[in-house]
Amino acid sequence: MDKKRKIRIGITHGDPNGIGYEVILKTFQDEQMLEFCTPVLYGSPKAAAYYRKTLGLQTGFSIVQNALEASNERLSVINCCDDNLKVEMGASEPAAGAAALAALERAVKDYQEGAIDLIVTAPINKHTIQSEDFHFPGHTEYLEDRLGNGRHALMILMNDNLRVALATGHLPLKDVSAAITKELLIDKINRFADSLKLDFGIDKPRIAVLSLNPHAGDNGLLGDEEQKVIQPVIEDLTAKGRFVFGPYAADGFFGSNNQTHFDGVLAMYHDQGLAPFKALSMGSGVNFTAGLDVIRTSPDHGTAFGLVGKNEADESSFRTAIYTAIDIYRQRMQERLIRKNPLRKQYFDKRDDSDKLRLDQDTTN
Amino acid sequence: MDKKRKIRIGITHGDPNGIGYEVILKTFQDEQMLEFCTPVLYGSPKAAAYYRKTLGLQTGFSIVQNALEASNERLSVINCCDDNLKVEMGASEPAAGAAALAALERAVKDYQEGAIDLIVTAPINKHTIQSEDFHFPGHTEYLEDRLGNGRHALMILMNDNLRVALATGHLPLKDVSAAITKELLIDKINRFADSLKLDFGIDKPRIAVLSLNPHAGDNGLLGDEEQKVIQPVIEDLTAKGRFVFGPYAADGFFGSNNQTHFDGVLAMYHDQGLAPFKALSMGSGVNFTAGLDVIRTSPDHGTAFGLVGKNEADESSFRTAIYTAIDIYRQRMQERLIRKNPLRKQYFDKRDDSDKLRLDQDTTN
Repeated sequence: MDKKRKIRIGITHGDPNGIGYEVILKTFQDEQMLEFCTPVLYGSPKAAAYYRKTLGLQTGFSIVQNALEASNERLSVINCCDDNLKVEMGASEPAAGAAALAALERAVKDYQEGAIDLIVTAPINKHTIQSEDFHFPGHTEYLEDRLGNGRHALMILMNDNLRVALATGHLPLKDVSAAITKELLIDKINRFADSLKLDFGIDKPRIAVLSLNPHAGDNGLLGDEEQKVIQPVIEDLTAKGRFVFGPYAADGFFGSNNQTHFDGVLAMYHDQGLAPFKALSMGSGVNFTAGLDVIRTSPDHGTAFGLVGKNEADESSFRTAIYTAIDIYRQRMQERLIRKNPLRKQYFDKRDDSDKLRLDQDTTN
Repeated sequence: MDKKRKIRIGITHGDPNGIGYEVILKTFQDEQMLEFCTPVLYGSPKAAAYYRKTLGLQTGFSIVQNALEASNERLSVINCCDDNLKVEMGASEPAAGAAALAALERAVKDYQEGAIDLIVTAPINKHTIQSEDFHFPGHTEYLEDRLGNGRHALMILMNDNLRVALATGHLPLKDVSAAITKELLIDKINRFADSLKLDFGIDKPRIAVLSLNPHAGDNGLLGDEEQKVIQPVIEDLTAKGRFVFGPYAADGFFGSNNQTHFDGVLAMYHDQGLAPFKALSMGSGVNFTAGLDVIRTSPDHGTAFGLVGKNEADESSFRTAIYTAIDIYRQRMQERLIRKNPLRKQYFDKRDDSDKLRLDQDTTN
């Protein structure tokens, strides 16, 4: 990447009838945001102008034909939508779903061509976006399919103090127990640890694993998945040198601030991780799709149809999603730089003290 | 009750190897506690003296033979244990389980005889207490059996701003879906509403019902219990005049502070309700067993074996459990007083305006 060029962020508008435009425009109303990134909004200049007027916002933007033309001075918008697209605030409309998908596809294409460095997504409506090209429960699965090259994504919810990953995601509750297998947990824990290292610069991450059943199964009285699946995986990975702990009863874990002792927490299912996470984050949480080459973040809220047009949406989570994506991008760049010319290994096995590297000795002897 | 007598609180010591004695003694170190209650501790004076010394606490107590002798001036202790009982701090011992049970049985007996007005329990170890007389997952089920007279208990977790009840409690996660039936939900919601009225003085309580599946099942994409069971129950009870709302997706519910709009929240299962509750309460939560004649509260923590003897246990939750029990007792007394001599009903059906009570008219006409 050209060093003079700022990080170029592709932002998808999400469902144009949701609060996406409001949080995007509010975020870039502050011109200081442009000091460390060049934002490119994939969406509809018409919709952006409509929301700007309706909400009385001052955010300036330019219309550009492609991301490489994006200005450093203001938000750039690429039109991805039908000219007839009509914003109907708060309405669940197939046309809005099509507009959300069109923006996403264009952003993915531009990412593949290197025109943008990372992707931040505004919320979509999971029903109206479904089509022949989009038959996924959400962004995570879509990006895994389009940009994963066979790799699997891991959903991490994070704020300044806490990172929660999910072993299972969008599954009916009754199917969760059967989905929790040893293979799944090993894979999730390894990918979580890899992301904590690569994306957050934590060399030896400490991961807490929550239990599936109440009271961690109470020694088998309340379910045996802890004894049969979770505990053996933790022992196995610990033997291999990972710092993995648990399984912890989920109810008391966050209440006793246990999360502060770990770099990451793996929850067994959606609500187990997200309900306490959101209770603690109170609107400042960010969703990060780890495990893929592409860095993608999003705010932790949805389209919030009931709130659209009222000027009541809080842009904090969206702004934090931008910051987070940039932080992770920089961390990866640094990591790549560090690894580029590694120190040559001096010796391979440490045996005893005689093996010490003797710097006081002239090696030409 | 003799009006001059203070409310007499029976306190069970729980597992003597846990942090029970520490939180009890710390609570009654403050003599102001005695201004509004007479505390009777069912346990072991020997253990109490041991912890007082070990932890360097100043709490005074008297040994009494029965609750009616309890002093207004200090904590009274009734010996319910074998003289050979040895405290082994933090150890899971059958003898300690037997001591916990003995205290509980004596307190229940005294409650039945009217010697104490309510019960506050310190935490037990669910494994060591099991015996022929105790084969329950916890206090709630034990008290339901001993003092329920066929009525069912409802577990409510509460703090100043939030009351969470559980539709299912100590169940393996994989059995939760099958346990959520219409009958169960109707019963739990009705009992929750009754308790909010009787115990908290809320005439028309507003109850939020959480969903079972992530995203409230996303219109059936992620499970259909919402559509088949929960939604119909809400509609049914609403038609009958209850203020019941939902089902709400559990993950965002607490994060968007939705709980502040309701008098109570019904969670579908243990961790769904307790994980966010404890995350928000941070040690000041109280467990209240509603639905029975006896009022019983407890702190929201366990025996915390790892913490015993370190003088690090926080008594806030236990102290709040005492306050809460007293508040509920007074509320019930007041409710009983109010209902004692109800106003005679003036008419039974309101038909139209001609039916108004005409106070301006001489009824002798």
